[in-house]
Amino acid sequence: MSNRILHKGLKSKVMSAEEAAAMIPNGAILGMSGFTGAGYPKAVPIALAKRAIEERMKGKPFKVTALTGASTGPELDQAMGLTEAISFRFPYNGDAVMREKFNAGVIEYQDMHLSHAGSLVRYGYYGRKDNKLDFAVIEVTKIKEDGTIVPSSSVGANTAYFDVAEKYILEVNEWQDERLEGMHDIYTVSGKHGERGPIPVMKADDRVGTPTYTIDLSKVAAVVVTNNPDRNAPFKAPEDVHKKIAQHILDFFDGEVKAGRMPKNLLPLQSGVGNIANAVLVGLNEGHFEGMTSYTEVIQDGMLDLLDSGKLKVASATAFSVSPDGQVRFNKNIDRYRKQIILRPQDVSNHPEVIRRIACIAMNGFVEADIYGHVNSTHIAGKGIENGIGGSGDFARNSAYTIFMSPATAKDGKISAIVPFASHIDHTEHDTMGIVTEFGFADLRGKSPKQRAKEIIEKAAAPEFRPILWDYFKRSMANPSAGRHTPHMFEEAFSFHTRFLKTGDMKPKK
Amino acid sequence: MSNRILHKGLKSKVMSAEEAAAMIPNGAILGMSGFTGAGYPKAVPIALAKRAIEERMKGKPFKVTALTGASTGPELDQAMGLTEAISFRFPYNGDAVMREKFNAGVIEYQDMHLSHAGSLVRYGYYGRKDNKLDFAVIEVTKIKEDGTIVPSSSVGANTAYFDVAEKYILEVNEWQDERLEGMHDIYTVSGKHGERGPIPVMKADDRVGTPTYTIDLSKVAAVVVTNNPDRNAPFKAPEDVHKKIAQHILDFFDGEVKAGRMPKNLLPLQSGVGNIANAVLVGLNEGHFEGMTSYTEVIQDGMLDLLDSGKLKVASATAFSVSPDGQVRFNKNIDRYRKQIILRPQDVSNHPEVIRRIACIAMNGFVEADIYGHVNSTHIAGKGIENGIGGSGDFARNSAYTIFMSPATAKDGKISAIVPFASHIDHTEHDTMGIVTEFGFADLRGKSPKQRAKEIIEKAAAPEFRPILWDYFKRSMANPSAGRHTPHMFEEAFSFHTRFLKTGDMKPKK
Ligand SMILES: CC(C)(COP(=O)(O)OP(=O)(O)OC[C@H]1O[C@@H](n2cnc3c(N)ncnc32)[C@H](O)[C@@H]1OP(=O)(O)O)[C@@H](O)C(=O)NCCC(=O)NCCS
Ligand SMILES: CC(C)(COP(=O)(O)OP(=O)(O)OC[C@H]1O[C@@H](n2cnc3c(N)ncnc32)[C@H](O)[C@@H]1OP(=O)(O)O)[C@@H](O)C(=O)NCCC(=O)NCCS
Repeated sequence: MSNRILHKGLKSKVMSAEEAAAMIPNGAILGMSGFTGAGYPKAVPIALAKRAIEERMKGKPFKVTALTGASTGPELDQAMGLTEAISFRFPYNGDAVMREKFNAGVIEYQDMHLSHAGSLVRYGYYGRKDNKLDFAVIEVTKIKEDGTIVPSSSVGANTAYFDVAEKYILEVNEWQDERLEGMHDIYTVSGKHGERGPIPVMKADDRVGTPTYTIDLSKVAAVVVTNNPDRNAPFKAPEDVHKKIAQHILDFFDGEVKAGRMPKNLLPLQSGVGNIANAVLVGLNEGHFEGMTSYTEVIQDGMLDLLDSGKLKVASATAFSVSPDGQVRFNKNIDRYRKQIILRPQDVSNHPEVIRRIACIAMNGFVEADIYGHVNSTHIAGKGIENGIGGSGDFARNSAYTIFMSPATAKDGKISAIVPFASHIDHTEHDTMGIVTEFGFADLRGKSPKQRAKEIIEKAAAPEFRPILWDYFKRSMANPSAGRHTPHMFEEAFSFHTRFLKTGDMKPKK
Repeated sequence: MSNRILHKGLKSKVMSAEEAAAMIPNGAILGMSGFTGAGYPKAVPIALAKRAIEERMKGKPFKVTALTGASTGPELDQAMGLTEAISFRFPYNGDAVMREKFNAGVIEYQDMHLSHAGSLVRYGYYGRKDNKLDFAVIEVTKIKEDGTIVPSSSVGANTAYFDVAEKYILEVNEWQDERLEGMHDIYTVSGKHGERGPIPVMKADDRVGTPTYTIDLSKVAAVVVTNNPDRNAPFKAPEDVHKKIAQHILDFFDGEVKAGRMPKNLLPLQSGVGNIANAVLVGLNEGHFEGMTSYTEVIQDGMLDLLDSGKLKVASATAFSVSPDGQVRFNKNIDRYRKQIILRPQDVSNHPEVIRRIACIAMNGFVEADIYGHVNSTHIAGKGIENGIGGSGDFARNSAYTIFMSPATAKDGKISAIVPFASHIDHTEHDTMGIVTEFGFADLRGKSPKQRAKEIIEKAAAPEFRPILWDYFKRSMANPSAGRHTPHMFEEAFSFHTRFLKTGDMKPKK
């Protein structure tokens, strides 16, 4: 028996993943843990994937609805994606196999703001007729003697799933370091209308909840013991392009500090997922800002660097997204990190109330932005959905500074990240303040659409695309399809995309 | 001397509107009062418009930046629009002349979420080099002996403008009923990062501030006395189409109450501007829901009906948008309304923190929605920008229920409000839960893009447009430009719009 299950009653619930999975009927609605490749269940999903095959061999359907915190690891999204054991996925995905299934049109996906996901489930919008979910399948680090639960390496939407699921399956993962205990801050945002009060987080490092989950133990249907690593991708060392993007952002911060709009230690940093976001953190570590704080969604390697160098005092998030190397470093210094890192439910880490109050700096990657400042974070022409909006909208909409960053081109310069009309819009012109590429920082604050177009084309677009973007803009001004406030020609709005789909290049042939 | 100016020191500042306007230099940045046709300055803007003409006759430029709460009346936006006395307008406009200037490309406009407007100004993004505005030009009802100020018929962004303007010009409008005193609840959301705490509003009728503005009297440069009515358009009696839309919404509420997701007295209602929004209020007044509350932006005639019938207990807003008839009724019953109506700064009335906490039902008009649930609130094909996003995004993004409503067609059935790709996007697929037309209520909750397409086409689109919407969807599934998660054909995404621009009809010729 695992020494991670100390509560007597729950010891009797220990069973294999297969036995636990057998409890889950076809069509069940599951709330599962997992946020980035951290803290997701690793055994029951594989057992479900296998069951889906067995049932299919018998000519019977087996598909479940899978709600999670955000992305997970291969044992969940890849295994259940491959076997099409999921009919509906929510609210985020980062797995390549699952993505292919969405883009093939065989698995349905709803891409949702992460701060909303738990609330919407709590409001009953994803439940059965009685508004409940069938099962919460949650990875945890340990079950204590008193039945309280030490969370795993992500908190995500777990509190919501515990609140609304009829039964629980707990995966106790012995791979997770027991010394995670004390790092979490579990605070529940009620789903009952009329019951909610202020969220008492006043600064990034406020602790307002408890270190463990308190759950209804009578709902625990199964406890499964695992010993499997979290799986997050290693980071690439920042390339030249990424370093230039980071430098433009640092320069912008300098300007804001000088103008008296930003304090010297900046404001709580939110930093998105991906290589560019990590490069900005590397840049900040090499820069001159001290005493920084972070109120963000995920802890990346770059955050650990900043904590190690002492430039960052505290990091609040809901999950880890550290590379295998980062994981080794994390475990080595876990006792120090426990004082510096706070893991909260995503309801809290991403809540507009807190983000607006403490005035974050939101920095997220984008796929494409149009000349008026609408941003596409999710859809790639010729391919389909990439990941999802994640927390980018939660932070972009509510922060004091909202910055989107990307290389100015993709696919060997054939694709411009700046286009006349974004082929999918996740963040509107009303929500974007800075568009940054290796060429510069387009500052959109206080500008009309036409003023933004000038700024974006001249500062952020790749020089070789500027003439054709200006050409589109000028001809739209001369002959607009819908006025000269946001000039467009609907006939040509997607001409960059259609040209790329035909010729493999957004630039016209010379 | 007006008996509305009781503070001794300020009596000496009384002057004509022309004298006050003469203090304002070319290029000045002005923060002005006004939200819908209520509480906007009525004399200084006309004087500025006249000055713009005089200066122009002398060959000199005269243009100012005009920041307001939201829309205003003809004395401001029409007069200053006609004379092009404004170079940059923010954050909302409802005036037809001003709109033409935007669409002609001669006045720049930034369309911004109303809850953000004041914050962004406070952060310094709209100010001079020193982050300040030059003047706040604010209509008030009365200056009390102690120098505190009784607000006028809107609060809007006035507290922000008082906070960041170097000098103030007060218009004391004797037309405003003195008995407005006590109806306001002035609470300031600080612009200083690190200083903000929770906004203590827990329910729609919580009063958390003071009934008057307390301002730095040394900054008052001029006091101008006026006696001019607010100007709001009369409402049309609900037409058949509007009544059907209202009925679908009421039926939806019934379903939610039955499902146990909504209490019997519903949730705090937010209701947008326009005829349809008013029709829904009329519908609610004829319906069976009792004990309702409202946490909204503007008080329309329909709200007064609901208060009069006793079905609505309280209405919190930032301004009035009542018809001339409604105004007469309002003044007659003002002593009762003072106990039922609370006017707050738009920072508070529209704040995501409060909206999410108290769980509003957001109901706003839309121009067009696409088959995947992206909503255009602002731009009309062949014409240009209509009004602006207003508070629709503040409420849509944060409410427990987010409903957009419009007739299914416009211009005698030639235009479909449901299109393949919205020609401008103000609210993304991530933010919309209900799309309602006279044909039905498309419930988008918990649905993937493809599931939403089916729901929207079958429930909300006009029957004559359904076949061509299905045709677009099916061919996009067969041959998608960016995968089958959100199937589109970029070549044809705006085909409804381009056809309309060519033939005057979105439907193809038979
Ligand atoms: C937008 C996003 C995909 C960029 O990711 P990234 O790792 O920073 O950036 P990369 O430049 O490596 O781009 C990732 C891939 O998209 C491709 N890509 C990016 N922009 C593209 C474009 N305009 N057209 C075609 N492909 C594009 C890249 O080529 C790369 O493809 P590859 O994997 O085949 O090499 C990522 O930031 C994201 O998923 N954002 C949405 C969620 C979010 O913002 N979360 C933040 C809160 S946690
Ligand atoms: C969208 C909006 C313009 C609809 O207004 P409304 O009064 O409810 O609806 P109407 O049907 O009367 O439409 C207004 C005009 O737009 C036109 N219109 C609406 N949809 C159209 C479409 N898809 N194509 C062309 N014209 C359209 C109507 O024909 C009408 O034109 P007219 O003035 O020439 O008759 C209005 O709700 C708005 O400005 N919304 C944005 C701000 C907001 O939501 N505020 C709410 C928070 S306060």
